[in-house]
Amino acid sequence: MVGWYNMTTTVAIQGERASFHDNAAREFWGADYTPVCCDSFSQVFQAVIARRADYGVVAIENSLYGSINEVYDLLLKHQLWICDEVYSRIEQCLVGTVGATIVGIKEVHSHPIALAQCEAYLASTLAYAERFEHHDTAGSVAAIKQWNDPAKAAIASVAAAELHGMEILAREIETHKQNYTRFVVLHAEKTTDAKSNPKPNKTSLILTVAEKPGALHEALGAFAGQKINLTKLQSRPVIGRAWHYIFYVDVDSGLHEARLQTALRELKAQDCAATILGSYRSSR
Amino acid sequence: MVGWYNMTTTVAIQGERASFHDNAAREFWGADYTPVCCDSFSQVFQAVIARRADYGVVAIENSLYGSINEVYDLLLKHQLWICDEVYSRIEQCLVGTVGATIVGIKEVHSHPIALAQCEAYLASTLAYAERFEHHDTAGSVAAIKQWNDPAKAAIASVAAAELHGMEILAREIETHKQNYTRFVVLHAEKTTDAKSNPKPNKTSLILTVAEKPGALHEALGAFAGQKINLTKLQSRPVIGRAWHYIFYVDVDSGLHEARLQTALRELKAQDCAATILGSYRSSR
Repeated sequence: MVGWYNMTTTVAIQGERASFHDNAAREFWGADYTPVCCDSFSQVFQAVIARRADYGVVAIENSLYGSINEVYDLLLKHQLWICDEVYSRIEQCLVGTVGATIVGIKEVHSHPIALAQCEAYLASTLAYAERFEHHDTAGSVAAIKQWNDPAKAAIASVAAAELHGMEILAREIETHKQNYTRFVVLHAEKTTDAKSNPKPNKTSLILTVAEKPGALHEALGAFAGQKINLTKLQSRPVIGRAWHYIFYVDVDSGLHEARLQTALRELKAQDCAATILGSYRSSR
Repeated sequence: MVGWYNMTTTVAIQGERASFHDNAAREFWGADYTPVCCDSFSQVFQAVIARRADYGVVAIENSLYGSINEVYDLLLKHQLWICDEVYSRIEQCLVGTVGATIVGIKEVHSHPIALAQCEAYLASTLAYAERFEHHDTAGSVAAIKQWNDPAKAAIASVAAAELHGMEILAREIETHKQNYTRFVVLHAEKTTDAKSNPKPNKTSLILTVAEKPGALHEALGAFAGQKINLTKLQSRPVIGRAWHYIFYVDVDSGLHEARLQTALRELKAQDCAATILGSYRSSR
């Protein structure tokens, strides 16, 4: 496929070419990158740590599914720097061989989350088609291309259908149209951002609050007192200490801002540990 | 199997007999119940709603994995009443046919989460064994019993091995021993609890905070002001409104307590909607 990628920047993504991760990278860098395809989120982190890729792109949250816990846990474990974020609309298509018809489809192949997102369409239009799970949406398109059977269809993005020269039999078949995924861009070193945006206005951090009643309320007060807004709060268990939690917080303030620095000093005074995961320009 | 269950109370569980859900029900009711086995969390809720079972038992959180989002979403959708909770230690065993040896195992069958929880053991002791995913840990024991092949083992609880008369080849093979699951007991009607415990001292609720800066901090202040502690805070996306959240909160106060009633009035004054999911006796 000519014209999809240039060789400038290498970006580790989860999934194959034209996967939703690759689509997010393309929204961010245009054609100006080369994907380093990984089978898992863990491998994306490893690729950036080992400098096999300049950046990594991982989905952190979907507007329907919620937080992707595995990525939150990997952020704690590896503490790569979040230098940017990308919001991407997830549009699912029914993809078949050239000339295939919807009524002739007997098998639907895709990632289990994509199949779940199209549940209503599958139940009404393809009630008698059997469903098969694949590791990747774009990979399911590659598979049906290889089988070349008009009875077999995949669920994937427009880009995946185009990459493999397959036919889009139906568009926007996802049940909820407000289907967006937020991706974060990871880098091995602290950097302002991957695009040279001048001023970060968003910061991601992990709070480990003191073990005392009202500690979380007090910690959030450090931000509220500086008129800093939380855009996200996600709790995760502390491994090995049952029913203890850490809190991942996104705030609408850049790390260089005086009000965030004041809030961080206030947290320290409260005996609340704050680990900065990154500071970047909000894409919303 | 004689003596496992009596016919008194019917309890919908996810999984088969001797699954971890069934084990949690047994910890709670002893032998004094009959399980209604369901294939999914959704089916457990449906069984209680349709009165096919007196109670339902669903896992809501694991100390390593974190919150089980599907159950949180089902609690919002159906608003069954949480009338109790059960904490259960999760001990994984390698289970084989009678006379099987660990060195002879070529296949390991279990639920994907159980396989993941025993990753270190599998990597060191059974590095060359192939792994197969099943819907249920107890079901994987039933499968290896049927195959009756000493090269095939399952990962499941002691109870599952005993129920099927299979041999425990190794105990406590989970990587992290601090592996506990919290289950909630569901009922179709508001009730004090399933065991006639006298006084609830814990309440689960959903907060929908007003859309203004610092709203979550203010809402948590309603509890802190009454010296009510949060034992859990879990955010979930609002479906159809991307990047808006609701908050599931557990507090250490019974619904009948004056301090919680005061906090609820304070929340109302703040324009923060509170939906009570249940009030029960803490099992910790």
